[in-house]
Amino acid sequence: MSRFKVVVSYDGTAYLGWQRQPHGLTIQEVVEDTIKKISNESVVIVGSGRTDAKVHALGQVFHFDSGFYLDAKGWKKALNAHLPEDITIVSIVAVKEDFHARFHAVKKGYEYRILLGEKDVFLRNYALRCYYKLDIEAMEKASKLFVGKKDFSSFCTNGFDTHPDQVREIYRIDFTYENQLLKITFEGKGFLRYMVRMIVGTLIELGRGKISEKDIERMLEERRKGACRYNAKAYGLYLVSVSYDQGWQL
Amino acid sequence: MSRFKVVVSYDGTAYLGWQRQPHGLTIQEVVEDTIKKISNESVVIVGSGRTDAKVHALGQVFHFDSGFYLDAKGWKKALNAHLPEDITIVSIVAVKEDFHARFHAVKKGYEYRILLGEKDVFLRNYALRCYYKLDIEAMEKASKLFVGKKDFSSFCTNGFDTHPDQVREIYRIDFTYENQLLKITFEGKGFLRYMVRMIVGTLIELGRGKISEKDIERMLEERRKGACRYNAKAYGLYLVSVSYDQGWQL
Repeated sequence: MSRFKVVVSYDGTAYLGWQRQPHGLTIQEVVEDTIKKISNESVVIVGSGRTDAKVHALGQVFHFDSGFYLDAKGWKKALNAHLPEDITIVSIVAVKEDFHARFHAVKKGYEYRILLGEKDVFLRNYALRCYYKLDIEAMEKASKLFVGKKDFSSFCTNGFDTHPDQVREIYRIDFTYENQLLKITFEGKGFLRYMVRMIVGTLIELGRGKISEKDIERMLEERRKGACRYNAKAYGLYLVSVSYDQGWQL
Repeated sequence: MSRFKVVVSYDGTAYLGWQRQPHGLTIQEVVEDTIKKISNESVVIVGSGRTDAKVHALGQVFHFDSGFYLDAKGWKKALNAHLPEDITIVSIVAVKEDFHARFHAVKKGYEYRILLGEKDVFLRNYALRCYYKLDIEAMEKASKLFVGKKDFSSFCTNGFDTHPDQVREIYRIDFTYENQLLKITFEGKGFLRYMVRMIVGTLIELGRGKISEKDIERMLEERRKGACRYNAKAYGLYLVSVSYDQGWQL
């Protein structure tokens, strides 16, 4: 048995998200079925976390175990030959047998894309389109309110996670704006379900002038589901990267 | 009756091309059906030219006549409210009644996108992926062979066009390369069917070192269908713009 750490990129448009479920196609199901097709092993892949329906990934990470004769390079080639066009393996390395894609992640990066200006048919599934003017400077300033170690109870849903507490640390939130496309990038130790989308949704409301920094402070202080009613659409969100300590690689 | 000049952008992935046909969905059909839905008029829209299946457009142009009460601004709003997500109206202006989108076009711009490097799930329908190394400088140099007024008989198909002659003028071919994406832009008076894709296919063969400038010169001189056997995939091609003299606008 060997354990492999896999970096995978996918266009989430056609999927009900990462996690296998009975009511529709998911990334996990497609990847597991593809592994089975190659090695005839029924494996369960373990992701660094779930992504919701229509959310994209540039660098989601999962691990899996296999007794099949392929090495990391062979697995990459075989998987990419069999996976559909909207899922691709970026890299595979062999790791120590106790490596865990979820428990050992030390940092995650997300990006949220917002198109300002005219409709663009090529971005219809890849960026939220804002019809109204946004005060980007004000959004960038207000984003600092979310940086640091905070209780994000107001900025998550109970959904599939039942974490004992909602304290998370965001290391940085950066803004870049080019060709009418606003990209807001997040780096943190870990994120709760909907957390990035709810923060982005809140920053958009502020950018439109509908709420103030004071309102955001109040929402954070409330520490209560429902305190934030904003949730930016899933298809603007990208899981960019998941980082691990070097030591796991064989 | 008023005549309108319309600039339309579309993601060609799901369509069998511009021109209405019996065996599948086309842009023309969807736009005409949408006009009918709005005004209950059965109009035939006249494009600046056809685009093939899976070819995209940033700025295709067509004209149509309507006796409906909407002005240009109203038509834009109504069409964009009813068109599917992969077709969008960029602009509409009222034009003189003898304006013709095809006959009066004075310049067309195309772009061909090639992804060098790793597979990118987000570009699978939007750029040709090249697995091999390309000598971009050599391609750019060789592209000059196609610039100017030439007989392009070797670089077209007989398909739907039955032009009396295959002499066309290309004003310029430009190369830009950024983030592993090579964009080759074409500007010319008009283009024959497959002309841009066959030129790009030929330049790729040269970039791979499979053919030389001498071979390209020979192909051009032959002026014979079949002299060029290369045709780059449709989904890398974009109709960028169609230009007209100012005088037509009302």
